[in-house]
Amino acid sequence: MTPATTIEPALRRDLPEAAFRPLEARYLEEPRGRWSGQGGLLLTPATTQEVSVILRAASAAGVPVVPYGGGTGLVGGQISGDLTTPVILSLERMTRIRSVDATENAMTVEAGVILQQVQEAAKEAGRLFPLTIAAQGSARIGGILSTNAGGVNVLRYGNARDLCLGLEAVLPDGSVLNGLSPLRKNNTGYDLRHLLIGAEGTLGIITAATLKLLPRPVHTGAAIMAVRDPAAALDLLNLARDRIGEGVSAFELIGRMGLEFLAETMPDVRLPIGRPDWSVLIDLGLGASGDPQSALEDLFAAASEAGLVSDGVIAQSEGQRRDFWTVRESIPEGNRRIGSVSSHDISVPTASIPDFIARGTDVIAKIGNFRINCFGHVGDGNLHYNVFPMPGRNRADHDAERDAIKTAVHDLVHEFGGSVSAEHGVGRLKVGDLERYVDPTKLAAMRAIKSALDPKGIMNPGAVLRQVT
Amino acid sequence: MTPATTIEPALRRDLPEAAFRPLEARYLEEPRGRWSGQGGLLLTPATTQEVSVILRAASAAGVPVVPYGGGTGLVGGQISGDLTTPVILSLERMTRIRSVDATENAMTVEAGVILQQVQEAAKEAGRLFPLTIAAQGSARIGGILSTNAGGVNVLRYGNARDLCLGLEAVLPDGSVLNGLSPLRKNNTGYDLRHLLIGAEGTLGIITAATLKLLPRPVHTGAAIMAVRDPAAALDLLNLARDRIGEGVSAFELIGRMGLEFLAETMPDVRLPIGRPDWSVLIDLGLGASGDPQSALEDLFAAASEAGLVSDGVIAQSEGQRRDFWTVRESIPEGNRRIGSVSSHDISVPTASIPDFIARGTDVIAKIGNFRINCFGHVGDGNLHYNVFPMPGRNRADHDAERDAIKTAVHDLVHEFGGSVSAEHGVGRLKVGDLERYVDPTKLAAMRAIKSALDPKGIMNPGAVLRQVT
Repeated sequence: MTPATTIEPALRRDLPEAAFRPLEARYLEEPRGRWSGQGGLLLTPATTQEVSVILRAASAAGVPVVPYGGGTGLVGGQISGDLTTPVILSLERMTRIRSVDATENAMTVEAGVILQQVQEAAKEAGRLFPLTIAAQGSARIGGILSTNAGGVNVLRYGNARDLCLGLEAVLPDGSVLNGLSPLRKNNTGYDLRHLLIGAEGTLGIITAATLKLLPRPVHTGAAIMAVRDPAAALDLLNLARDRIGEGVSAFELIGRMGLEFLAETMPDVRLPIGRPDWSVLIDLGLGASGDPQSALEDLFAAASEAGLVSDGVIAQSEGQRRDFWTVRESIPEGNRRIGSVSSHDISVPTASIPDFIARGTDVIAKIGNFRINCFGHVGDGNLHYNVFPMPGRNRADHDAERDAIKTAVHDLVHEFGGSVSAEHGVGRLKVGDLERYVDPTKLAAMRAIKSALDPKGIMNPGAVLRQVT
Repeated sequence: MTPATTIEPALRRDLPEAAFRPLEARYLEEPRGRWSGQGGLLLTPATTQEVSVILRAASAAGVPVVPYGGGTGLVGGQISGDLTTPVILSLERMTRIRSVDATENAMTVEAGVILQQVQEAAKEAGRLFPLTIAAQGSARIGGILSTNAGGVNVLRYGNARDLCLGLEAVLPDGSVLNGLSPLRKNNTGYDLRHLLIGAEGTLGIITAATLKLLPRPVHTGAAIMAVRDPAAALDLLNLARDRIGEGVSAFELIGRMGLEFLAETMPDVRLPIGRPDWSVLIDLGLGASGDPQSALEDLFAAASEAGLVSDGVIAQSEGQRRDFWTVRESIPEGNRRIGSVSSHDISVPTASIPDFIARGTDVIAKIGNFRINCFGHVGDGNLHYNVFPMPGRNRADHDAERDAIKTAVHDLVHEFGGSVSAEHGVGRLKVGDLERYVDPTKLAAMRAIKSALDPKGIMNPGAVLRQVT
């Protein structure tokens, strides 16, 4: 493809100087260190119009464009990889919150706004923007939408796509899609919003979005309950939803292994009910007339009677609720300290989680002796399924088995009708997985749409779909 | 385009005899009598494979295919219009409920299943399928998804697209998209589901869908409250959601004119609080620990204190709740009995509803003397905005003004950033409106996608996008 240097002189004429910044190393790295970029021309447009100028020039000359948000993606979607001199288009200067409207229950923000700032602006307006992910302090809305981020509150509020009412985007030819809108009902033609969301920058650049705001729960509460097994966790979830309805904001499954890793690597994290084989963290958010503590007490009583739970503790204060969440949120850090051989962002049909966990144990045992830490958002069927060395050994001892583990887990997920990328996306990491596991008709339709909207293939080449050279 | 008679001999060889039925008049008519078909070859496949055979043949020969669900669409999307001998492909024999899984909170149904049967199957499993529309006794799931139907519970549960987890569809070339899945989190490539939903059969035929099931509310309740004006209705909605959260299932605005039409044409419908200028019907569905009556009493007290409401009545029984809904559901029939000059399925940003109503009155007054009945789903900004003759005159007296009224209302909607098709779709009725009001970049991208997936333009030609001849 044409190097960015070809269009740089024209862009220097058409864009303000502030749109050019030195290419620091961080633009070429990703959190897990699996991908790196070779270089490129970093552009930091401040307006949608400047993004349009860049794409029009890149499109005319056939220069690849790699969009860059907060840089937190875990599948290499934001890293230019093999491309030698692409445009690296960072949205970091498009950070305006254009409007927050509490009556409308909507806010419009530019792609570079960081998730946490969205959450805070919503809170100031007395509203909730419910998307909650570990990287919320640095992930930007454009990337969050482009990867359709998930997180812990999907059970109640949906994925990023479910929280987006309208989009502004620049298509590969530089044309601007003016789709910002707070409308809840609008059946005028194809839904391009949902096509761009989750396309990981391969069909255009999201420059701004109208986001859905929700009522803030008035009363919150949480409990940790030890469950008999994963099947009991599922039954408990359905029992909770039958009794409490949409008030169940999160329902996180925690396996014993995760707690043992915490005890080993982060002994300061207090474990409220020790280290049961399986436990769940239940988080509630109720309206003015709700009483989360009594709802959780009633739930625990009913679940005990049904033989689902053996132990449990209900948070008596917001501080204790935070402590419970600290346990859940520390598990990934505990994992990092142990050092996984292979980790997997997968989902399976919720009802098949117990079977999947049992079968997974068998499948891994056939490859060798490993420890498995399985945890995650059980209400969404989304498990973080991570495989670790036995005590005394380390990640590097198992380099030879990594691919076999990955393939075995993904094959099993596929057999269960699951997804090998539940929330992180495809990026550059899972292009082969997509080809292996995705419905061939879907893949062919994706390629046809990509060719139709990006005929020169300039948008994030090599991400999601294999680059045709 | 090639007539269906060209491929009929080959299809008679490849399909069972039951796939051929006589073309009754009903396939060529639509509810409002605005569109009619010329004829065609009616095919009633019983399986996805048979749909694939039909589309493969039609695609190879260039024969137009018009999909037909329950025939209840209000914009002529299901009517072949000018096409002389298309294939009319009815999904009426694909009526299997393939699975209902209460643990998974999902069910998989074929495209020909009627909405009410979906609701009933969900109920039998102890779950809720919340989509509720007037035509639910005859509308089929394929058409409901193809038009992204809305209804009264969108405020709480979303449109049809928000209730669909996965799709099976046959693309124009006959290839089968195997996307049935109950997964809540699946970020493996472009979201074709949302592209096909709302495409009104112009990109392929939906043959089956996995639908999302929800907890059934344990306690329901309803109230009718007289509000000061439409702005007070909005404030009341936000007050209700702040206090009751997602428990607010519906929030319907009712103008005095609708009640006067009822009093005139359907005097048996009891009006619980007479005929206030503006009133709202509030419907609640709460969990096991909820108490809708006391929640509504508290809401009314708070709203009275805030000066939002002047009168109100809370249903004391399920029977009374049904009576309240009878008022709301009778309004369209009252409208029919009066006979509208022009009716509009529109949405505007929720917060601008009061301004829009005021401006609408002015705009119509400039054209002539009319009565306006404005009612609808205020929480979604979705108004049914219908214009009627003054007493003593009738619809036919105003034939000359109809187009001016329609254009004036749609122009005003557009000025407010609204939608000229909130829930009924584009069909053949609003192709010109789409061209007039939709973002040009969106329209160009739609055409590019249509060409990519349906290069011969056989799928429902003339619907949504103007037929290129």
